[in-house]
Amino acid sequence: SHSINLAVIPGDGIGQEVVAQGLKILAAVLPQDVKLETEEYDFGAKRYHATGETLTDADLDSLKKHDAILLGAIGDPSVPSGVLERGFLLKLRFAFDHHVNLRPSKLLPGVATPLAGQPEIDFVVVREGTEGPYTGNGGTIRKGTPHEVATEVSVNTAFGVERVVRDAFARAQARPRKKLTLVHKNNVLTFAGHLWTDTFHKVAAEFPEVTTDYLHVDAATIFLVTDPARFDVIVTDNLFGDIITDLAAAVSGGIGVAASGNINPSGEFPSMFEPVHGSAPDIAGQGKADPTATVLSVALLLRHLGYEAEAVRVEEAVAADLTERGDRVRTTDEIGDALAARVAS
Amino acid sequence: SHSINLAVIPGDGIGQEVVAQGLKILAAVLPQDVKLETEEYDFGAKRYHATGETLTDADLDSLKKHDAILLGAIGDPSVPSGVLERGFLLKLRFAFDHHVNLRPSKLLPGVATPLAGQPEIDFVVVREGTEGPYTGNGGTIRKGTPHEVATEVSVNTAFGVERVVRDAFARAQARPRKKLTLVHKNNVLTFAGHLWTDTFHKVAAEFPEVTTDYLHVDAATIFLVTDPARFDVIVTDNLFGDIITDLAAAVSGGIGVAASGNINPSGEFPSMFEPVHGSAPDIAGQGKADPTATVLSVALLLRHLGYEAEAVRVEEAVAADLTERGDRVRTTDEIGDALAARVAS
Ligand SMILES: CC(C)[C@H](C(=O)O)[C@@H](O)C(=O)O
Ligand SMILES: CC(C)[C@H](C(=O)O)[C@@H](O)C(=O)O
Repeated sequence: SHSINLAVIPGDGIGQEVVAQGLKILAAVLPQDVKLETEEYDFGAKRYHATGETLTDADLDSLKKHDAILLGAIGDPSVPSGVLERGFLLKLRFAFDHHVNLRPSKLLPGVATPLAGQPEIDFVVVREGTEGPYTGNGGTIRKGTPHEVATEVSVNTAFGVERVVRDAFARAQARPRKKLTLVHKNNVLTFAGHLWTDTFHKVAAEFPEVTTDYLHVDAATIFLVTDPARFDVIVTDNLFGDIITDLAAAVSGGIGVAASGNINPSGEFPSMFEPVHGSAPDIAGQGKADPTATVLSVALLLRHLGYEAEAVRVEEAVAADLTERGDRVRTTDEIGDALAARVAS
Repeated sequence: SHSINLAVIPGDGIGQEVVAQGLKILAAVLPQDVKLETEEYDFGAKRYHATGETLTDADLDSLKKHDAILLGAIGDPSVPSGVLERGFLLKLRFAFDHHVNLRPSKLLPGVATPLAGQPEIDFVVVREGTEGPYTGNGGTIRKGTPHEVATEVSVNTAFGVERVVRDAFARAQARPRKKLTLVHKNNVLTFAGHLWTDTFHKVAAEFPEVTTDYLHVDAATIFLVTDPARFDVIVTDNLFGDIITDLAAAVSGGIGVAASGNINPSGEFPSMFEPVHGSAPDIAGQGKADPTATVLSVALLLRHLGYEAEAVRVEEAVAADLTERGDRVRTTDEIGDALAARVAS
């Protein structure tokens, strides 16, 4: 018999509501003999206002003991922009070396998309999670004066790029179409661009079955709306990945259904699973939030922990629900109940 | 009587073909008493292969003497990625201090868009053109080894940010809706983010009639496909501007119709006008390229040089042509002739 020891971080805004549904589905889908233990953490705006802390070393030590982390959403207008993002979300991704940020996009039949003609969309973005312009490198001089200079440094290492590129090739290799697209801006960001491009070509030699191509990030946004079917697996840097995965979510059912995994493939640290959407304070506490993205993040969590059959069951339940939901307005809880009923049956 | 002394850079791929149509329309729309003088420059892949040069100091001295520059497209697969982009396009933008990169997006009735429901799209992006991650700052150590580190530095100055933000406010003020959106990623890129955000708020005080808001760049890509009507004027940094203007072009008629101006508002250096699209070597020399983006860039050029009535006539000709063209396939030349006939009548 097995057990899952899960850290749960509901966070801010709608985080609490959507995480509750994620846990409901997790409980419903797991085999009886799997013991699910959860520990809830109070990170986010409330903790910050009460203590001034976002994520302490003791917190990291405690989180580290879990098999995985389920996160709702972090962020609140009462906290200055950047404090929770840098002080919690990014700090955690960096501390636990979540270098593979996995963001699948799949448009299901019948699901609303802003694109005309209901195109086929089924790809996954492998976004680097621990480098690029997200490292916090840079600084400001002469702040607040007419001579202020502010810099942001994108840091890219052979070690960091190669491991995420290799991970993406392996994922492409395992998919039927076996196609991998590198997205960068190597004609302008030539230092990082060379490293990414050279590494991509080097690793490609190990995966002769995988078809490869390259797109500048600006061109990639065009194809995401004019021909999203051309994509199978995309590998890209942290910032480009942030941008294109929001766009990808928008065209493939909206951020209400976009899941993500912040993965440490070695297992040295627990991986974290979270919806791509934010805390949406404007609709918090009203039962209006769509928990689907969180439930799909739970599927990624199950797959990561080796529960492939259960992950598929959750994904199939969501697919069936999405295809059938039409314009019906349901509460967060009702959607969660419907999904739980589907996975249990 | 007036005169226009124009530098013409056809460039690579389809550049020659589309620029020819741009000049045709320019000749057709200008009043008889305006003398149009053009000087053609051979920049691009051919010059690079012949001489190894992309843009010399002597070239810059020569270009500087003109009232404006019309550019087709630069870039060819025979030249390593980045050489012409950094060595010509960006070098010219930086040398002539083209800090206002103007990119209007307007979806005309009847024009194809990948978006469902033919949304209203009529906004302009003011992209900063001389700072950000485009400065070429950064470097590589231990190149080609497993310990390579490559950095890209985004440089942002109070001087550079304030002038482009002020330009954008003035443009918003002059439009009926008077709305300006700042696009950045100030929750992650906090150094540059503070400078952009603080500057934006400071300059806003000078324009009390302008409504303002802020979007993270990832969220902006979502709204560009789900609610593009929400945008009036956008101001953003060089890289974010590059990305969102390609997406904006894609949703508002395609990059075949997206124009841009690289503007030096002080007039110290000539401004440069170019289509957003690239050199499209795959269709070069076949008369398949749509010259509309170049023709619309000519309209921006006319407006910049004070020929407002002529700019409007070109834009109206393009609007009429776009609305009526439907699925007809015409050659580059045929589209140019049709537009020339419209502006002349
Ligand atoms: C909130 C922010 C730090 C985060 C990011 O930029 O990575 C978010 O946009 C995301 O994509 O998960
Ligand atoms: C070709 C490239 C240097 C250029 C840029 O990134 O600015 C292009 O994409 C553009 O948008 O004009």
